Amino acid sequence: MRHLLTLENMPRAEITRLLDRAEAFRARGEQRALLAGRTVLNLFFENSTRTRTSFEIAARRLGADVINFDLSRSSTAKGESLLDTLHTLEAMKLDALIVRHNENRMPDWLAEHANSMVSVINAGDGSRAHPTQGLLDALTIRQRRGDFENLAIVICGDIRHSRVARSDVHAFTALGAHDIRLCAPRALLPEDANEFSGCAITEDFDAALESADVVIMLRIQKERMAAALLPADSDYFAQYGLDLRRLALAKPDAQVLHPGPLNRGVEIAGEVADGSQSRILDQVANGVPVRMAVMAELLTPSSP
Amino acid sequence: MRHLLTLENMPRAEITRLLDRAEAFRARGEQRALLAGRTVLNLFFENSTRTRTSFEIAARRLGADVINFDLSRSSTAKGESLLDTLHTLEAMKLDALIVRHNENRMPDWLAEHANSMVSVINAGDGSRAHPTQGLLDALTIRQRRGDFENLAIVICGDIRHSRVARSDVHAFTALGAHDIRLCAPRALLPEDANEFSGCAITEDFDAALESADVVIMLRIQKERMAAALLPADSDYFAQYGLDLRRLALAKPDAQVLHPGPLNRGVEIAGEVADGSQSRILDQVANGVPVRMAVMAELLTPSSP
Amino acid sequence: MRHLLTLENMPRAEITRLLDRAEAFRARGEQRALLAGRTVLNLFFENSTRTRTSFEIAARRLGADVINFDLSRSSTAKGESLLDTLHTLEAMKLDALIVRHNENRMPDWLAEHANSMVSVINAGDGSRAHPTQGLLDALTIRQRRGDFENLAIVICGDIRHSRVARSDVHAFTALGAHDIRLCAPRALLPEDANEFSGCAITEDFDAALESADVVIMLRIQKERMAAALLPADSDYFAQYGLDLRRLALAKPDAQVLHPGPLNRGVEIAGEVADGSQSRILDQVANGVPVRMAVMAELLTPSSP
Repeated sequence: MRHLLTLENMPRAEITRLLDRAEAFRARGEQRALLAGRTVLNLFFENSTRTRTSFEIAARRLGADVINFDLSRSSTAKGESLLDTLHTLEAMKLDALIVRHNENRMPDWLAEHANSMVSVINAGDGSRAHPTQGLLDALTIRQRRGDFENLAIVICGDIRHSRVARSDVHAFTALGAHDIRLCAPRALLPEDANEFSGCAITEDFDAALESADVVIMLRIQKERMAAALLPADSDYFAQYGLDLRRLALAKPDAQVLHPGPLNRGVEIAGEVADGSQSRILDQVANGVPVRMAVMAELLTPSSP
Repeated sequence: MRHLLTLENMPRAEITRLLDRAEAFRARGEQRALLAGRTVLNLFFENSTRTRTSFEIAARRLGADVINFDLSRSSTAKGESLLDTLHTLEAMKLDALIVRHNENRMPDWLAEHANSMVSVINAGDGSRAHPTQGLLDALTIRQRRGDFENLAIVICGDIRHSRVARSDVHAFTALGAHDIRLCAPRALLPEDANEFSGCAITEDFDAALESADVVIMLRIQKERMAAALLPADSDYFAQYGLDLRRLALAKPDAQVLHPGPLNRGVEIAGEVADGSQSRILDQVANGVPVRMAVMAELLTPSSP
Repeated sequence: MRHLLTLENMPRAEITRLLDRAEAFRARGEQRALLAGRTVLNLFFENSTRTRTSFEIAARRLGADVINFDLSRSSTAKGESLLDTLHTLEAMKLDALIVRHNENRMPDWLAEHANSMVSVINAGDGSRAHPTQGLLDALTIRQRRGDFENLAIVICGDIRHSRVARSDVHAFTALGAHDIRLCAPRALLPEDANEFSGCAITEDFDAALESADVVIMLRIQKERMAAALLPADSDYFAQYGLDLRRLALAKPDAQVLHPGPLNRGVEIAGEVADGSQSRILDQVANGVPVRMAVMAELLTPSSP
């Protein structure tokens, strides 16, 4: 592995190795010698303080230097091409670029054009992939449920535009899940159902929840409501919000996940987000060791 | 001590221990092993590059990682609640949050809701408290005067809205001062004099300065002048500005302090700010070891 | 050497020592113990993410702490004088200020007023000097050509406003070059030719290129075109852009430099920038060890 761009087609053994390594980092906390002297650069074309901070903490706990490259002030604003920026950063002997971009496959494009010394880590591109989120969601589920073979997993919300949903499905499928249920109002269901072949697709949230082991609620972008693609807040919540009544349709010990930040009262009730079945803060906590595992995997010579 | 929120009601022994520890750090310069592996996050809802930088330098000289959480770009802008932000940061295993906020008691609110692993350090909240400023002012005075019992201390400026004045009075009173004179035009005197019980309150700056040992000038917010609460610059300076003539009313070796940044020619004359009685740069210099002492005290197990 | 403000009048031996030291850092990569415990602050009044990042990486590879002082949020915005900011930063025990400013000699002014413990490094002031760029350009040329005595060096573009051109000429002249050719449309030639005494000055790019060993293309500020000082993009390129046809007028192995960021199709053709004679990425790569050499030279006691 030289880059992490997507979980699509990643073999089960590789995902499992990353999750095992993340567990080891979680137990150990830090390992400053591992990436001492290496330099990691945050290249965020789309704002995300949470994800950027999680990567920054992870890199520092492995001993790497972290540079935050503020694009609003960079020469890309002066009209420098992205390729020139890439080559400039490479020439400074960076070891990894953590890239977030609102266009699909931009991290792949950077990886294709990068020299052989730089690893590109996708921190979210458009609606396409958010592989570290997929890994941390898988880790969070595995911590309580172990095997994915017999799990019923519901993902509810803006499936169509969600890179989280895509990376989750790739991870869970690779790990053996075969009962994944995608639920959304019609306007937010995938345009091409083939993209999610193997998943059940429904507009009926109550039906989808039946006997579910895991319920992943996606953040609703309020901009889409403004664009009339969606009913207003309260109507959306009535149809697709997860409250305690609905959660009771799932298994009694069903786990609730959400990638954050939360819209309380829109896609999730506060009493569910803060309740005993919520794993939302475990997801955040797992984000750091998962990102440590990814950076360790990409930036250190592979051990047998 | 788990949090530092205010100096109000802090026992004299505790303040003295922090000041002693700050002196030790001042002599030693750095102690990188002390907080190695710990993570401190700057959570500034109000801009203050000077104070943020002072905390950042202090944390690094103790070996801690420092994360600057840029709130203008964070998900709080996307509507995430402050409580969700707090719990998200906690889940990343942060050791301390350095909080500045324009609302009174916001750091206390965060401390109440924080889990048991996080320390909250108030870097200034509204008009209520700025405890590290109070400590560094006390340290600066103590370095030349030792005992507070016999000092006459004048604080002049916008007492009503000043968190510095409040934390100074708490620190100096705990350390034994009983001649503290607060001076301001009526509109900037405290609304509730009980808040400053034990202090003399006056609008007459010349009278207040008589035989003073220490004169602390507060920064005037020009916005308040715009709001017609205050006379214009030159009139304010004529009545409440500290120039050499006025300084001569105090004791010959009176010390002049100012929390910065200065409005030269508004509340203080350049010749006083740059003169031999000015301790303004000593205050800045003391800020770093004082903040080191606070972080060391909060983040390391107490020694007997 | 306590400050690095300009290369003007810097002796050849000193430049050579800095270049030799940069080569040593280039080979070695890092030397974390050298500036461990030292603090370097980026004080950029003009944006330059590339240069700031290069200094930040250099400082970290020497083990120093780096503080980015965000001036858009600092108290200078609140009206604090630059001198007060300087003294405030000094009081925090900073070892070096990396200064970029759009006014000529502002770093010199800071150096004059700085106390004896702080080094000022000019990261570019107005049109006056960019000494680390001059050094890295000299290093890049020396790596392939060795001696400057017999080199014909062309610098083409906005000579009049270019701090890069000035620092390049100072460096190359000190190193023995005596065939430096400055080329620009009349509006961008130096107002006072005495400033570049010893250099040939011409508006004829084709003639200037004849038998050249090195061609340094300067970035065109599009704002100057808007101000009608220059022809539009395509006309400028026709007269002063470096394409393969023109490059063939120089020696077959002529080296092409550009300080970046590039305006492809304005002052340089993509096929030249990406071609085999381009040293542009070597310049970026050399920037880090050159800045390490400068900081090491200024911040560590001189060895015999």
